Amino acid sequence: MKIAIMGSGSMGSLFGGFLAKSGVDVTLIDKKTITDAIKKNGLEITGISGDHHIKAKATHNPSDVGIVDLVLIIVKAYDTEQAVKDAVPLIDKNTWVMCLQNGLGNEEIAAYIIGKEKIIRGITTNGAMLHKPGKVIHSGTGETIIGRCYEPNTLEVDNIAQMITKSGLPTSVTQNISGIVWGKALVNAGINPFGALTGLRNGELLEVPEIVVGMKELVMEGMEVAYKLGIHLPFDPVEKTFDVARETAQTKNSMLQDIEKGKRTEIDYINGAISKYGEKLRVPTPMNDLITALVKGLEKRTAKNSRSR
Amino acid sequence: MKIAIMGSGSMGSLFGGFLAKSGVDVTLIDKKTITDAIKKNGLEITGISGDHHIKAKATHNPSDVGIVDLVLIIVKAYDTEQAVKDAVPLIDKNTWVMCLQNGLGNEEIAAYIIGKEKIIRGITTNGAMLHKPGKVIHSGTGETIIGRCYEPNTLEVDNIAQMITKSGLPTSVTQNISGIVWGKALVNAGINPFGALTGLRNGELLEVPEIVVGMKELVMEGMEVAYKLGIHLPFDPVEKTFDVARETAQTKNSMLQDIEKGKRTEIDYINGAISKYGEKLRVPTPMNDLITALVKGLEKRTAKNSRSR
Repeated sequence: MKIAIMGSGSMGSLFGGFLAKSGVDVTLIDKKTITDAIKKNGLEITGISGDHHIKAKATHNPSDVGIVDLVLIIVKAYDTEQAVKDAVPLIDKNTWVMCLQNGLGNEEIAAYIIGKEKIIRGITTNGAMLHKPGKVIHSGTGETIIGRCYEPNTLEVDNIAQMITKSGLPTSVTQNISGIVWGKALVNAGINPFGALTGLRNGELLEVPEIVVGMKELVMEGMEVAYKLGIHLPFDPVEKTFDVARETAQTKNSMLQDIEKGKRTEIDYINGAISKYGEKLRVPTPMNDLITALVKGLEKRTAKNSRSR
Repeated sequence: MKIAIMGSGSMGSLFGGFLAKSGVDVTLIDKKTITDAIKKNGLEITGISGDHHIKAKATHNPSDVGIVDLVLIIVKAYDTEQAVKDAVPLIDKNTWVMCLQNGLGNEEIAAYIIGKEKIIRGITTNGAMLHKPGKVIHSGTGETIIGRCYEPNTLEVDNIAQMITKSGLPTSVTQNISGIVWGKALVNAGINPFGALTGLRNGELLEVPEIVVGMKELVMEGMEVAYKLGIHLPFDPVEKTFDVARETAQTKNSMLQDIEKGKRTEIDYINGAISKYGEKLRVPTPMNDLITALVKGLEKRTAKNSRSR
């Protein structure tokens, strides 16, 4: 199987590295400065899965690669549209496109550009941190769950899961990927903006009783939208939100990390997406609207002035 | 007229300084370190009303002062209860107690301790900054409006207004002080937490369309509570909120300043008070609840770590 990975951030490098190590024909695609570094130095994965130094193909130009069997989209949610457009030269009628990102609506963007029938959606709970191009720390084992969201799964989806599992990253197939994606997004909706706006670690959020109430309300508002969309949530997202916050008590969530680095957040694909779906479905989402507004204000401030918080 | 002022922060020192300068018998009451400095060096007022150096009486012990005709309460809202309790030795049946603070509910706290019939409520739009004990910059001229909130005004309220006006701080009497206090609090509710949470100046808030919507929604939620309470708002608080934000575009609002200094904010007396009244009156206030929760989270973070934002 021939694979291209759009995006060589922490997750792209992790998946690319494992797949390349297992003998799969993988090419990482990203900006030239980044892919030049990967071509020169290879990928270096350290952390919980041991130390690996892996030769990997990389290019900034998708046309160099030709048609592939599978494109993995692992960019920030707000870069999805550009990444899928850039991937067009890699895709023919037999190519699968897997969106392996956090947040809501990524697969819709991809489907709009290249067609629903090609889309596989995936979600991963692996932890990874990039400390420079090609150098990634595998910080937490996790599972990866994939599935088609517009049509029934086929044997080929099973084969892709097996291939990724064989490479060292356990992956399973689900018939309810939309439920799993929404479930994870609701948990993120209940934790991430609170951390971003207050600067508190996940566990510290639970020490402020008013915030605990707010987290619950925000998730419940999102659940209403999910139900109206016909999503079957595979777990209680409110309970899960507090479980995750407790289990990751010492963690500064990714949205807070983005704010601290002066980077754009994925708010539009988490709480902002809940608001947008809510508006379309006439489900009121005042609290997700408000928290999205606040994070956008914070982005405006950090963009012009990326002091440490 | 013999006056005691509880609190010698920026506003206490401004009012105390002007009144003393005009020959009124005023004593400032605050912590010993602060009143020792005032006793030693006097009050120094600079800024838009010229430079003044004024001898002033000051003590940390209200019992030293004896009974007065008027007690001015000009402490942070969350210190109101303690300040009124401390003021008890100053008060007999003929003493007026004027709460000249921002926020909602201060006069209720005072009335509970010393009786409704003694209370005068006041609000001031003067700007003042303390740069050390006794040294205050008068940064903006404003008006002061006073009135009784539980009973009709008497001639003595007029006399107090005239005395303050004569000292150099224009003051008028209103029959609708509750409307004016609520109106100002609603404007603060629509601006202050947004600045505190995002770090943006008042004018910058208006550059984020989602925040503009959020500001409006928050104020409108508070208006519902005010109506239910029977408050007659003397102006449209939504319009006023945006007017004030435009007029003070370069300003970091007081709640943001508190956060930046690692100090507790007055959130419980602004948005938090709207939520509390709303709960009592069964008016839902989800957005004021949420923004109060967020500011409490921010206070928790700044309390343990007062880095600059």
